[in-house]
Amino acid sequence: MADRVLVPWEQNLENAPAGVRGDVYDGTGEPAADLAQVAFYVVPYGRPQYQRLDLMARMPGLRAVQLLTAGYEGALEYLPAGVELCNGRGLHDASTAEHALALILAAQRDLPRWAADQAAHRWQPHFTRSLAGTRVLIAGYGNIGAALEDRLAPNECEVVRVARRARPDEGVHGVGALHRLLPGASVVVLTAPHTPETEGLIGAAELALMPDDSLVVNVGRGPLLDTSALLAEKGRVRAALDVTDPEPLPAGHPLWEAPGTCITPHVAGGSDTFYPRARSFVDDQLRRWAAGEPRANVVRPGGR
Amino acid sequence: MADRVLVPWEQNLENAPAGVRGDVYDGTGEPAADLAQVAFYVVPYGRPQYQRLDLMARMPGLRAVQLLTAGYEGALEYLPAGVELCNGRGLHDASTAEHALALILAAQRDLPRWAADQAAHRWQPHFTRSLAGTRVLIAGYGNIGAALEDRLAPNECEVVRVARRARPDEGVHGVGALHRLLPGASVVVLTAPHTPETEGLIGAAELALMPDDSLVVNVGRGPLLDTSALLAEKGRVRAALDVTDPEPLPAGHPLWEAPGTCITPHVAGGSDTFYPRARSFVDDQLRRWAAGEPRANVVRPGGR
Ligand SMILES: NC(=O)c1ccc[n+]([C@@H]2O[C@H](COP(=O)([O-])OP(=O)(O)OC[C@H]3O[C@@H](n4cnc5c(N)ncnc54)[C@H](OP(=O)(O)O)[C@@H]3O)[C@@H](O)[C@H]2O)c1
Ligand SMILES: NC(=O)c1ccc[n+]([C@@H]2O[C@H](COP(=O)([O-])OP(=O)(O)OC[C@H]3O[C@@H](n4cnc5c(N)ncnc54)[C@H](OP(=O)(O)O)[C@@H]3O)[C@@H](O)[C@H]2O)c1
Repeated sequence: MADRVLVPWEQNLENAPAGVRGDVYDGTGEPAADLAQVAFYVVPYGRPQYQRLDLMARMPGLRAVQLLTAGYEGALEYLPAGVELCNGRGLHDASTAEHALALILAAQRDLPRWAADQAAHRWQPHFTRSLAGTRVLIAGYGNIGAALEDRLAPNECEVVRVARRARPDEGVHGVGALHRLLPGASVVVLTAPHTPETEGLIGAAELALMPDDSLVVNVGRGPLLDTSALLAEKGRVRAALDVTDPEPLPAGHPLWEAPGTCITPHVAGGSDTFYPRARSFVDDQLRRWAAGEPRANVVRPGGR
Repeated sequence: MADRVLVPWEQNLENAPAGVRGDVYDGTGEPAADLAQVAFYVVPYGRPQYQRLDLMARMPGLRAVQLLTAGYEGALEYLPAGVELCNGRGLHDASTAEHALALILAAQRDLPRWAADQAAHRWQPHFTRSLAGTRVLIAGYGNIGAALEDRLAPNECEVVRVARRARPDEGVHGVGALHRLLPGASVVVLTAPHTPETEGLIGAAELALMPDDSLVVNVGRGPLLDTSALLAEKGRVRAALDVTDPEPLPAGHPLWEAPGTCITPHVAGGSDTFYPRARSFVDDQLRRWAAGEPRANVVRPGGR
């Protein structure tokens, strides 16, 4: 019976419990390992071309697959029947929340403007907005939203939580309250997943409800925010976007030049924070695997 | 006896206790008030030309002066004998700490690079550094340093505190430990005041002790960091500077173009956070004035 593991980092083999043997494969080139022997496959992380989901078809002894992304919908079509699937939920929270905080602060404190002034050798101070004193609405208050709230807490701002369903005992509003809450928010952060219901969560009607000079931050998925509706605002609502629709944003797209808009290329989840977390998470999953314990983050159980 | 007040904001007169009368003067143009009647002068805040310290000479009945800046050295030469001087210590902490956090996050998450990519319509993601997992040394751990530490706390980084004198029970190191601590810090934030002792606090020797690709942030005063020594590092140590030496930085100065350096024009303390705080502080000082209570933030007592 196949019983080897295929992992992205040397460290995972070094830290593996006695009896766990396998190979390292980081997604570049073809794996040197005998794929027929792989029972536990940790899909390499990085650009889409490194995430070799196609290799599962060449692993007849496969019993479990571990993704390092939170999203797993794209992996389901590759997953052979009976194979367990685990995702990377939680590994990106800190990094994504940190990036959202960076985007909010940069927008409020005019950092893009200072960068332009620096390029022009221009010393021209003026008062800026601040994060303190604002009300920040988090639309999609889950793991990342909670990690962001932690980081906002000492900044003297007020946080309003919105999820799919209201959880009154936790102070979380349902999405039905969104229209009522938008006029009072100077910052709206999108951290919901991409589903049919969240597409265009912030569209023309919602933008129209936001105050002048307010800020929308998107670290969820591009389609949560209606690009044309944002462009039609012509900078009345500012934006800081880590994800866009379309994505990647092609050269020449008007969003690149939209007034009051700052764009980062889907890098919120991918920072130094991620790697140590991801490595030890894989270490821990291997330990569970060897001990016959249930894995964490199972999104589709194995077995037939 | 002169008994009127001269305050920068209408609100201060509206909120003033019964019996307190006076005028509003915001530093633009000449004051309409009869200066001979002014007993309590709140110096307008803003660009240096609005901070009309020279008016004190035309206020023979002056008994107290309130500054809205923390620095007060520059006001002493204008202060008539026997007049009480209060400063704005505490009013800028939140704003300055927030800006320091914005600069740290922008530098760690490569925001200047993404801004350049946006201008070039370039979608080119790569992994970045993060704040999480770093050790941040605060050199000059006073009010602003403590406000910054509060904001760093949820970001999964470690804070090292350095002040003039060690306070072991509060975990604060003395400045003598600086050389020992620098090699372990990936971020160094300068929040000390400008004194003869703090000039060149970070010079060539200190920069040489900092790790490759570490970051120095200056929100204190320009001369704390030796500009030539920083330039000589050629980007090995990155920098985010709200204050510079010289200041204002003249066009053509090499610091504008220094690799890995981002500059904001002394705007850390001046954000929306400041105004509501400053207004209510003045309200409170007027209340104390009317009640004959000692003022807060007295830096030079009145009386003869
Ligand atoms: N930019 C990046 O690099 C990056 C990195 C990682 C993740 N992400 C994105 O961030 C998303 C969220 O991640 P997470 O770990 O925080 O997920 P999570 O813990 O599952 O939280 C998602 C939240 O969204 C809420 N939600 C779902 N449908 C909604 C709707 N129609 N209206 C309002 N709220 C709705 C959910 O509400 P309920 O609790 O009521 O169901 C839940 O609170 C991921 O799906 C991914 O797309 C982006
Ligand atoms: N960029 C801006 O817009 C802006 C705005 C406001 C203020 N500032 C600057 O920030 C400075 C600090 O403000 P603050 O309110 O935090 O002042 P603070 O509460 O007086 O704190 C200053 C700290 O610096 C320490 N210090 C003094 N000399 C030192 C030395 N030789 N080496 C190391 N540490 C030393 C002090 O240590 P001890 O406690 O041991 O004396 C104290 O902890 C101000 O003086 C001002 O120049 C800048």
